[in-house]
Amino acid sequence: MNKFYSGRKVLITGGLGFIGSNLARRLVDLGADVSIVDSLIPEYGGNWCNITDFSRRVHVNISDVRDRFSMKYLIQGKDVLFNLAGQTSHMDSMSDPNTDLEINARAQLSMLEACRQFNPTIKVVFASTRQIYGKPDYLPVDENHPLRPVDVNGINKMAGEFYHILYNNVYGIKAAVLRLTNTIGPGMRIKDARQTFLGVWIRLLLEGKPFEVWGGSQLRDFTYVDDAVDALLLAAENPLADGQIFNIGGPPPVTLLDLATLLIQAHGGGAFEVKPYPADRMQIDIGDYYADFQRATKVLEWVPKVSLRSGLSAIMKFYQHHFQNYL
Amino acid sequence: MNKFYSGRKVLITGGLGFIGSNLARRLVDLGADVSIVDSLIPEYGGNWCNITDFSRRVHVNISDVRDRFSMKYLIQGKDVLFNLAGQTSHMDSMSDPNTDLEINARAQLSMLEACRQFNPTIKVVFASTRQIYGKPDYLPVDENHPLRPVDVNGINKMAGEFYHILYNNVYGIKAAVLRLTNTIGPGMRIKDARQTFLGVWIRLLLEGKPFEVWGGSQLRDFTYVDDAVDALLLAAENPLADGQIFNIGGPPPVTLLDLATLLIQAHGGGAFEVKPYPADRMQIDIGDYYADFQRATKVLEWVPKVSLRSGLSAIMKFYQHHFQNYL
Repeated sequence: MNKFYSGRKVLITGGLGFIGSNLARRLVDLGADVSIVDSLIPEYGGNWCNITDFSRRVHVNISDVRDRFSMKYLIQGKDVLFNLAGQTSHMDSMSDPNTDLEINARAQLSMLEACRQFNPTIKVVFASTRQIYGKPDYLPVDENHPLRPVDVNGINKMAGEFYHILYNNVYGIKAAVLRLTNTIGPGMRIKDARQTFLGVWIRLLLEGKPFEVWGGSQLRDFTYVDDAVDALLLAAENPLADGQIFNIGGPPPVTLLDLATLLIQAHGGGAFEVKPYPADRMQIDIGDYYADFQRATKVLEWVPKVSLRSGLSAIMKFYQHHFQNYL
Repeated sequence: MNKFYSGRKVLITGGLGFIGSNLARRLVDLGADVSIVDSLIPEYGGNWCNITDFSRRVHVNISDVRDRFSMKYLIQGKDVLFNLAGQTSHMDSMSDPNTDLEINARAQLSMLEACRQFNPTIKVVFASTRQIYGKPDYLPVDENHPLRPVDVNGINKMAGEFYHILYNNVYGIKAAVLRLTNTIGPGMRIKDARQTFLGVWIRLLLEGKPFEVWGGSQLRDFTYVDDAVDALLLAAENPLADGQIFNIGGPPPVTLLDLATLLIQAHGGGAFEVKPYPADRMQIDIGDYYADFQRATKVLEWVPKVSLRSGLSAIMKFYQHHFQNYL
C-alpha cells in the first residue's frame, strides 16, 4: 500500500468531511500528492478543523461537485479520484429531492463524463451506501441482495453507483464502489443527525443531557473510520476491484440499546431514554441491517480491525477535547 | 373499464408519441376527457399524424416534461396521469447522458413533487422498460430479477421508476409501474432505431432495400400496442396496482431471424442480410430476453391478445398507406 500511493496525485471530493479528511491524512502520510475538493455547505460534513493537523500538506479547493467547470479542471492530471462528496441526509432528500438528485446523481454523471473526456486513465472509488438495499430480505446482506431504496437519497445514490459501474464497463474508466454502512470516528458530524443518529447521541452526552434511543432492538453494524479508509485505499490500488461493488461492514452487529450502553461506558457516564420508533418514520424503517463483507475480504483482503468498544472510546476522547469545533 | 374512464380527466405525457397516441384514441372512445402533453422534439416519438383521426376530441398542449412550471399547472385537476414521455434511445443516452437524466429521472421527480403538492389524489401510471434488467440471469424474466442496466438510459429509467414507487409508499401518491418490452404497432417511429430496431427494418422494407439482422438468434418478445394500451388502462383503474411493478410481455418470444421472416411475409416480400453483432455494441448486448408477465395476469387480469403475425400485418398495412408521414 505504501508503495502504490507514494507520489500519486489523488483528488478527494468531500475531502474536508469526516471520511474524506481521515483518508486525506492517511494519504499524506503515505506520500501522496493530495488535493481536496469541498463545498463547505454548512449542512454537510466539511469542517476545516478536520485537517488542522495537516492542512499545510494538502491542496484545498473550495468548489462543489455540481460545478462541472471546476470539476472538469480538477480531475485532470490525477491518478486517483476518491469520490466521497454527497448529500447524506435522509430527511433533507425528502424535503428537497432535487438537490439530492443534483449532488448524488447528476454531479456523478458529469464527473464521469469529465473523466471519460479528459482523464480516461484515472481510477475512481465511489462511496455508496447500504441505504440502497432498503429493508433486508435476509441477514447479513450481501452485494446480490435486491436494491429497494426507501428514500430519495437511496434512489439517487443507487443511480450514482450504477453510473460508475457503467463507465467502467463501457468506457474502461476504472471504477470501484464501496457500499458503506454507519461509519463512525473522530471528525464525524455531531451537530445533528444528518450523517448518523450516533452524532446526536454524542452531542447530547457531551452536553450532559440524556439522548433518545428509538426502538432499541434494531441490529446495526458500524465501521470505524480507519477501517473505512483501509477499504478505500485497497479498492483504489487493486485492479481486481475495477467494476466491482463491495459491502463494507464492521465488527459483529449490536442492537441500538447495546450501542447506547457501550457509548455511555466509553464516555464514563451519561443517560438515555428509550422511545417508541416515531410513526412518521415507520414507512422508511428498515429493521435490522448488517453487511456480509466477504467479497471485500476475498478480493481486497480487507477486514475491519477496530472493535466497536475501542472505536467509541477513541471517538469520545476526541470529542471531549474538540467538542467546540463541531457544534 | 368503460365505466371507469367515462368523464375522467386524463393527462398523457408523450401523448403525440406512438404508445401515447394509441392510448389517447382508446380513452377518447371510452369517454374520457383527454389532455396530451408533448414536446414534439424531432428525435423523439411525437407526431401530429398519430392523432389525425381524433385531434378534435383531445386537448393538446405542447410543453416538455422538464418544464416544471407547465407540468405543475397541467397536473392539477386530473384524475389520472399516464406518464409516458421519455428519452428512449440507448445511443442518445450514451452520447448525451445529461439530457437523458433530465428527462428520465429529474423530470419524473419534479412531476411527482407537483402531484404531492398540488394533486395528491391523482393516479399515476409510469411507463418503464425491460432495459433496466440488463443481461438476464434466467428466462423468462420476472419482476424480482436483479436490476443491472447496461446503459445510461436504463439507470435513469430505473431511478424514475423507483421515485414513483417511493412516492406511492411514503406519500400515498397512487402509482403503478409497467416495465414494457418492445412495443410495436401503427405509429411507432420508423425513421430510425431510436424506439426499436424494428422501425428501421420496416422503413428499409418499404423503401425496397434489404434490412440488416445483427446476430439473429437472440430471443425477444413484442407487445402489440393495443395490448400495451390494455395494460396501461388496467393498471390505472385497479387500486391493487398501486405501488406495484408489472412486466408487460407478449405472445411467445421469437428469434430475430424468425421476426425478420414474419415481417417479410407480412409485407408480402423483401429481403434481409444477417450480419455479426457489432463489436462496439457487445458490451451492452443483453442476449435473450422475454418477460414473465404472470403478475400482470394475476393482479390486472391482463394477457396479450394480438399474435405477432397479425400485429406485423396491421403494422405493414398501416405504413403502406402512411409511410410519408413517418419519415
